[in-house]
Amino acid sequence: MASIAPVLERADANLPQSLERLFDLVRIKSISTDPAYKAECRKAAEWLVAELQALGFEASVRDTPGHPMVVAHHQAATANAPHLLFYGHYDVQPVDPLNLWEAPPFEPAVREIAPGRKVLTGRGTSDDKGQLMTFVEAVRAYKEARGALPCRITILFEGEEESGSHSLKPFLEANAAELKADYALICDTGMWDRETPAISAGLRGLVGEEIVVRAADRDLHSGLFGGAAANPIHILTGILAGLHDETGRVTLDNFYDGVEETPAEIKASWEKLGRTAENFLGEVGLSIPAGETGRSVLELTWARPTAEVNGIVGGYTGEGFKTVIAAEASAKVSFRLVGNQDPAKVRESFRAYVRSKIPADCSVEFHEHGASPAIHLPYDSELLTRAKAALSQEWPKPAIVIGMGGSIPIVGDFQKMLGMESLLVGFGLADDRIHSPNEKYELQSFHKGIRSWIRILDALA
Amino acid sequence: MASIAPVLERADANLPQSLERLFDLVRIKSISTDPAYKAECRKAAEWLVAELQALGFEASVRDTPGHPMVVAHHQAATANAPHLLFYGHYDVQPVDPLNLWEAPPFEPAVREIAPGRKVLTGRGTSDDKGQLMTFVEAVRAYKEARGALPCRITILFEGEEESGSHSLKPFLEANAAELKADYALICDTGMWDRETPAISAGLRGLVGEEIVVRAADRDLHSGLFGGAAANPIHILTGILAGLHDETGRVTLDNFYDGVEETPAEIKASWEKLGRTAENFLGEVGLSIPAGETGRSVLELTWARPTAEVNGIVGGYTGEGFKTVIAAEASAKVSFRLVGNQDPAKVRESFRAYVRSKIPADCSVEFHEHGASPAIHLPYDSELLTRAKAALSQEWPKPAIVIGMGGSIPIVGDFQKMLGMESLLVGFGLADDRIHSPNEKYELQSFHKGIRSWIRILDALA
Repeated sequence: MASIAPVLERADANLPQSLERLFDLVRIKSISTDPAYKAECRKAAEWLVAELQALGFEASVRDTPGHPMVVAHHQAATANAPHLLFYGHYDVQPVDPLNLWEAPPFEPAVREIAPGRKVLTGRGTSDDKGQLMTFVEAVRAYKEARGALPCRITILFEGEEESGSHSLKPFLEANAAELKADYALICDTGMWDRETPAISAGLRGLVGEEIVVRAADRDLHSGLFGGAAANPIHILTGILAGLHDETGRVTLDNFYDGVEETPAEIKASWEKLGRTAENFLGEVGLSIPAGETGRSVLELTWARPTAEVNGIVGGYTGEGFKTVIAAEASAKVSFRLVGNQDPAKVRESFRAYVRSKIPADCSVEFHEHGASPAIHLPYDSELLTRAKAALSQEWPKPAIVIGMGGSIPIVGDFQKMLGMESLLVGFGLADDRIHSPNEKYELQSFHKGIRSWIRILDALA
Repeated sequence: MASIAPVLERADANLPQSLERLFDLVRIKSISTDPAYKAECRKAAEWLVAELQALGFEASVRDTPGHPMVVAHHQAATANAPHLLFYGHYDVQPVDPLNLWEAPPFEPAVREIAPGRKVLTGRGTSDDKGQLMTFVEAVRAYKEARGALPCRITILFEGEEESGSHSLKPFLEANAAELKADYALICDTGMWDRETPAISAGLRGLVGEEIVVRAADRDLHSGLFGGAAANPIHILTGILAGLHDETGRVTLDNFYDGVEETPAEIKASWEKLGRTAENFLGEVGLSIPAGETGRSVLELTWARPTAEVNGIVGGYTGEGFKTVIAAEASAKVSFRLVGNQDPAKVRESFRAYVRSKIPADCSVEFHEHGASPAIHLPYDSELLTRAKAALSQEWPKPAIVIGMGGSIPIVGDFQKMLGMESLLVGFGLADDRIHSPNEKYELQSFHKGIRSWIRILDALA
């Protein structure tokens, strides 16, 4: 296999021009949520198509009911190379309040914010124009250094990520055959810190459920009926309090089916990150982990399922006091899922548990509020192992595999609709102020991001 | 002693106008717990003062830090007649949920609900405007028929009974000399059934308490923090669920101090009343006693203490779903007391229990909402014996002496602060839906209630 040193060197040499190209893209005001910028969104799509065509891609602007998609294809040097789908989005967030920007948001610049630490400023430099251009520039370096690409590459750039991605699913459905690849690469996430690259391997799933417990057919006076009539708030609080045992584990039957323990070496790598209960919870005024005992906050939020009550109401909740026994009480409950937990089975187990706690003369009603399984890239997958090694070569510290408590819907869409595993790699930092005034992207993120993709493409080839 | 027949006849003749006057009072939206109705509370007090002045009382609106009191005095025909203090309250409960009312709560009406059975509908028709007006109209009949009253009468109408009676004790203390009488008459209770009048000899006490549990300093995203951050709804539901053990007993330390078992012969007399779990709870759509196991519904509601959650709220309770971990959650909790339970000790025990369940990085805030001990009147008093005979003359069946689940704190205050025994007589029925939508008062309760007071005043003169 050919050395990638010349490719990396080419990327280094290209950097000034790479920056100019990124800045050209940032200057296009592609705010997707504001109809006033509709033409600018199309302009960004057209700009990207032109760039990709110049790199030898078969690229086109593809209309949708909203802002257009960019789709581009390029063959690999060898027929048996893997096929990768790279996803990014060219649309950006609105820029108000404009007066808080230190420089105009669509006039990108390089600023030195500390000795030797340069940042690229402007809306979209980090989210997601700077990130997606790391991949485009990596491809450019390959083409210029070798005249060919190590993998077959399909590119999908969306223009509605910041405004609900309404056209995405229909577009994936209508173009499934064209977009299906071996793996997806998604560049819309962050580093752990300035020295430590990260691969997001887990995204928790979600089951939402609302329950309404009904007792008497009317509100009752607690003097007349108290002590004899069922109180639906008591029934409900009993149910909710019983969801966890004294160690914080969820008590539902079969709840942990499909949940696997995080491998020791992954946990060990998380422990080295220095995220303690004190510094994680301290930011929101807390200090003591509240979930399962004996697990770190990173494990609790990245790798463990939860049952959380998101809302509860019953009886008199206004000013003052009312000695009433309510006729009904309700709660909204959500479950974060990991591993192979089955959303439908979790919901059914919850409902069976709740029903078992309802006295014979009372009743319960359930309302479903969404269900999605967890997304989990196996820790030992080839994709992850190779990408991790590639990133570790580029950065001062080895790459780590992290979880994410929330969700990135396209990951699930790729999995469900196109049967593809996704690799989530990005070079943003927590202080990039995406969605806020004075968005920035580290010059190092851009430069080493390009070099990282060169290494990853090589590793996957 | 003059016959009371002309007085009773006058009351009968007055009935249409008596109803009009009651309806005028019911139309005043005197919801004491809601500050928005402050002016309406004053309006109700002023309306009553005007009515009493028209009847020859020396009456006035008396300011308090809360809603005003009404105090009125009238001499008896003879100097050696007993002095009676009549107490009632002009304030009413809130009317939510408004959509469950079949007619607007403050637009009273007469409805025939069965052949020959008419009811007065509207908030306060039973609790307590209809009840207090039975006495005012009895007084009116005496004045109109005889030009004089058989007893010296002082009237005290309160405007904060439904919101904790915060001004009552200070007012009684400051005006003890003016308010002290031989006996107090309190009309805020019910009949045994539609044919059987009742005198309430036992009243449960009440401790009202509101708790607010606080965790993070802001609402949190349950994806990012779920499983690691304290959820105040979990803490609160755990606290509330722990208030009872599996036999329905309240778990607070020393909670049952001062609670004595009801004598066997009293329990036996209650058993003869035929009140079963099925017929008592069946009226409100329930069938299974929910309190301490192994006790009858009459014992549970008349002679046993309780802990009830009257309201709970936290997190997102609107339409749809929001994956939030709330910053705080709160509940309103009340305790019904019996025997010699000490309200202050019960409150302290509850607070100690709650504090013991609050994690070190969370906090709790307590708000006091009233406290009164239980009351028990001697079964063999002169007052009770005479009133029982008078009531038995008016109604189809003889009067009985019963216990009461509710709390009328003023009975204790009258006893402790003014050294007065209280006679608790009222004409409400169990299905009056006081504190609930569609409150009603039987026309018969109103009419025969007026006649009952005429007989009782005569009996006590």
